[in-house]
Amino acid sequence: MSDLMSTSGLPFDDIRALVRQMPGPDHAARHEARHRQERLTKPSGSLGRLEEIAEWLAAWQRRAPAVTRPVVAIFAGNHGVAKQGVSAFPPEVTAQMVSNFAAGGAAINQICAAYDLGLKVFDLALDMPTGDISEEPAMDEKGCAATMAFGMEALTGEPDLLCIGEMGIANTTIAAALCAGLFGGTGTDWVGKGTGLDAAGLARKAAVVDRALALHGAHLADPLEVLRRLGGRELAAMAGAVLAARMQNVPVIVDGFVATAAAAVLWRLDPAALDHCLFGHVSAEPGHMKLLQAMGKVPLLALGMRLGEGTGAALAAGLVKAAVACHSGMATFDAAGVSDRN
Amino acid sequence: MSDLMSTSGLPFDDIRALVRQMPGPDHAARHEARHRQERLTKPSGSLGRLEEIAEWLAAWQRRAPAVTRPVVAIFAGNHGVAKQGVSAFPPEVTAQMVSNFAAGGAAINQICAAYDLGLKVFDLALDMPTGDISEEPAMDEKGCAATMAFGMEALTGEPDLLCIGEMGIANTTIAAALCAGLFGGTGTDWVGKGTGLDAAGLARKAAVVDRALALHGAHLADPLEVLRRLGGRELAAMAGAVLAARMQNVPVIVDGFVATAAAAVLWRLDPAALDHCLFGHVSAEPGHMKLLQAMGKVPLLALGMRLGEGTGAALAAGLVKAAVACHSGMATFDAAGVSDRN
Repeated sequence: MSDLMSTSGLPFDDIRALVRQMPGPDHAARHEARHRQERLTKPSGSLGRLEEIAEWLAAWQRRAPAVTRPVVAIFAGNHGVAKQGVSAFPPEVTAQMVSNFAAGGAAINQICAAYDLGLKVFDLALDMPTGDISEEPAMDEKGCAATMAFGMEALTGEPDLLCIGEMGIANTTIAAALCAGLFGGTGTDWVGKGTGLDAAGLARKAAVVDRALALHGAHLADPLEVLRRLGGRELAAMAGAVLAARMQNVPVIVDGFVATAAAAVLWRLDPAALDHCLFGHVSAEPGHMKLLQAMGKVPLLALGMRLGEGTGAALAAGLVKAAVACHSGMATFDAAGVSDRN
Repeated sequence: MSDLMSTSGLPFDDIRALVRQMPGPDHAARHEARHRQERLTKPSGSLGRLEEIAEWLAAWQRRAPAVTRPVVAIFAGNHGVAKQGVSAFPPEVTAQMVSNFAAGGAAINQICAAYDLGLKVFDLALDMPTGDISEEPAMDEKGCAATMAFGMEALTGEPDLLCIGEMGIANTTIAAALCAGLFGGTGTDWVGKGTGLDAAGLARKAAVVDRALALHGAHLADPLEVLRRLGGRELAAMAGAVLAARMQNVPVIVDGFVATAAAAVLWRLDPAALDHCLFGHVSAEPGHMKLLQAMGKVPLLALGMRLGEGTGAALAAGLVKAAVACHSGMATFDAAGVSDRN
């Protein structure tokens, strides 16, 4: 990643070059995993998505699947658009929650402890919110590309599974605008109550997204330009992390609406760009299922959650660990002396 | 439970007496848990079903929720109806898989290790299959009630969360017959491919269930009589375990189609009898969703699994542990210095 970070000429071109160089899956490793599944002491296919998960891990880890260094990376950012009254919480909560993560008091800390997942928190210039997307672009190109490159730092320490999450007051407004910019539709199509807006707040949020779409509407053909204009720092960083994980053979679990919107920028560049990603859950935020369906992705969990912080991805990581444990630890029919089917 | 086990007079009456004595939820403990949820550093309701789970545990544990001694109990039985060619696997696999559980080679062993769940396996006279339900009752009343009492042994060791699962070649045929006996319908309405039947096998399985329903049809008004005639030992034991857990304030996670069919006997005696139960997943066996819907139950996971062994319940137990960790470990708004909503 250091090459990318040192480049200053045409940063989005460097991102595009990485997308063109993305490795595909390792078909031999996937086949080997599938072959092993067939010999384990269970009816063929009876572990359902757990079997798919083990094969998916094998394909993208390019080896027998293993999860020994899973990491949850949370990216936190602040947004100029927060001043438009689009969130039920004040913007200082972003920094307060980063402190809460550090102190171990948030939901994600408890889930990481329960499943023995590492946790890294990246705060992105919280005292300098991005531009208010209803009035100006969120970022300039250099800043956006540099933030994507910063997000790639989530891969330091060589995790073998990366969960992507976020914290940022007003960022479901950003995610809604980004989805509309990438997939079409209006504010009403993509906004939801976020942390708990009332009806008036929801209408205001949709109107703010519509103003942003009107302002930037002539510049939305390039997904990276959509990210720069309608996105935010934690979204740019998550997109960078997802891309870097692909380059380094690390499977990714994407969290909720905001994290999926960030990943969707890459999907718009190349629909194969998220093949190394599992979508951990579907959020209660209504835009999330629309977005997943637009990309043909099927979430693993549906628990009515809408917290962010990587919590849905981390819960899914618990299932992934169980899937790997089954794949790696189960006896074969031969070894256990169990009769195979009639 | 020793009182029950020593009784030999009218055993089903003793079961009915227990059902009449079932404790309800502790509303004060539930309210206290809900009150705590509202003060934790997250938007109200944003942990979705994880919050419901914490409150459900509080209501049935009658205290602040905690899971420190979770246990998966697997009950294994053999069935006379297996001789009708209703399974893709031979009946000796039941005992072979019990050995596999003991050796640590099955899927459930890996999931229990991944989530630190205790595992107990109860084998129920595997060398003496129950009567072939298409020709005679599965059990006599005394044997059925004694097996229910035996299932209550799953509560020894004072677990604070009990997952209920099973192993038994041909037992999805038994579960289908039991569902038809309890809720109506024909074999075709309730059978599925089980461990992997082909179309001819599936038709044979439905016909066997229909023969059993024709034979016992005049005696299906009493749910316990349905269990005795159309059930099996592992199903009777699971029903006993679920009832004993209720009496001892232990929340239960029910596994797949067969375990849910066993629990449904109690639901037919009193629809409140399963209020202390969470349904861990919905199986790929099509009768399972029908059965859950008939009882108004919403499963936690939908992963296309159809293995049994308690695997779906154990995966759900991993989520329950995370739910409790969030409930118990998160900071409050006040303690963390995080601003509450505007």
